[in-house]
Amino acid sequence: MTGTVYLVGAGPGAADLLTLRAVRILERADIVFHDALVPHEILLLAANGKKVEVGKRSGRLSTAQNFINKQLADAARKHDIVVRLKGGDPMLFGRAHEELDYLNKQGIPCEVVPGITAALAASAELGISLTRRGMSRSVVFVTPRAGEGEAPNHWVDVVRAADTAGIYMGAGQARAISDALIAAGKSPQTPVVVIENASLPESRRFFGRLKDLEQVAALGAGGPVLILLGEVYRDSAIIDAWPQVHSSFLPTARAIRSGRNRSGNS
Amino acid sequence: MTGTVYLVGAGPGAADLLTLRAVRILERADIVFHDALVPHEILLLAANGKKVEVGKRSGRLSTAQNFINKQLADAARKHDIVVRLKGGDPMLFGRAHEELDYLNKQGIPCEVVPGITAALAASAELGISLTRRGMSRSVVFVTPRAGEGEAPNHWVDVVRAADTAGIYMGAGQARAISDALIAAGKSPQTPVVVIENASLPESRRFFGRLKDLEQVAALGAGGPVLILLGEVYRDSAIIDAWPQVHSSFLPTARAIRSGRNRSGNS
Repeated sequence: MTGTVYLVGAGPGAADLLTLRAVRILERADIVFHDALVPHEILLLAANGKKVEVGKRSGRLSTAQNFINKQLADAARKHDIVVRLKGGDPMLFGRAHEELDYLNKQGIPCEVVPGITAALAASAELGISLTRRGMSRSVVFVTPRAGEGEAPNHWVDVVRAADTAGIYMGAGQARAISDALIAAGKSPQTPVVVIENASLPESRRFFGRLKDLEQVAALGAGGPVLILLGEVYRDSAIIDAWPQVHSSFLPTARAIRSGRNRSGNS
Repeated sequence: MTGTVYLVGAGPGAADLLTLRAVRILERADIVFHDALVPHEILLLAANGKKVEVGKRSGRLSTAQNFINKQLADAARKHDIVVRLKGGDPMLFGRAHEELDYLNKQGIPCEVVPGITAALAASAELGISLTRRGMSRSVVFVTPRAGEGEAPNHWVDVVRAADTAGIYMGAGQARAISDALIAAGKSPQTPVVVIENASLPESRRFFGRLKDLEQVAALGAGGPVLILLGEVYRDSAIIDAWPQVHSSFLPTARAIRSGRNRSGNS
């Protein structure tokens, strides 16, 4: 008799962008294994659950994943409700496969609860749709990261072909990203947006052109970054004096949220 | 003095996959313009709001969009909180650009609230991650649909290049989709999954190969369908006797949800 492991998407950062299902599971969790970047406000929802930080920051050895897998299985043998809380959505660059595969082989029941991925949160905040009729009918999410000895990563070809692209975990590689895409034939003039801390109060966004991605990305303060590129951002990026910080063209209506506890513990 | 128009993602269908922010805005909405496919259970959250169905089903004339735009603007001149409730996420195949552009030109404040898009809900339900280290580092979402006179849609090139693909609004075009992809060089043996009514109790999923997509898709009962394809589905698709209906390999833990009102009205 074992408990269930829930792989839960914590979303982009704002606690009120969790799903209702995620909140309810967190509220009942016995133990929560969470990524390093999940905000404290979200962890507070697991009022009765023990919190264990397991998130790998980029660059750590892959053995860490094996240790997480084992921790989850061990916890499921002691507790009813075990939560593995991951930034964004578990099924998009979340290494969920490795955890699900391990737990499944151990006979431990699992369930996945989706989350708002960074690209959707960033698009909402920018007020710019990823798709647009007559201009963007394909959206790709890639990461240029690949582990040693892994199969070749064709992200450059995919981004070149797509109308709109979101590049995850590309901070610190901005120059290599723009060089690779331009060499592959993507226009150096392709509009880009770099969004840091999407959905959080400290969110900032920087607009520019693909050829200048390195300088645009350097404006960030080191928070989690998403790079968006494509013609849908042209209206925003037609700025001679790039790079430039924009506020959203849409006024945020904080009133509707400030009336309630943003922790989501309604 | 006008109200604010909120473009709110209703998510894939299950009411408890709404975000907390979406629920709070719906609860305070004066009027809700909703897609035809948004479930009744979600509309009930807008207890005090007038509900107006505006959703276009595929094939309707594009002039309908202009009428929706105008309805939203008119409502914002009469009400504080106007909600445009869209299936999935507003920024992914939701025609949000047209509404935001119109409202912005009219000087009407807007805010976008993201939602769980069908591909993420379907992946959670399947228990199969869209990405996998060493196998899938790129995920593309496309639609083969294009309006008359619109720019060419390069969805075939993008799907061919990507490791994993989600094809939205492709039901009824399954044969054309597989023919186009195979002609472009995608392997006829590429594993495919067709998911109908993702996240809802009546959800069903069908596995097969790209060459058989038409027959696999024909097993559905006419509900909203998402087509997923890529090597990450191979483990599921290694079935001699395709097509075949699978239940999820993961037991769903309904207990944790059934203890509460699934309407999300906590």
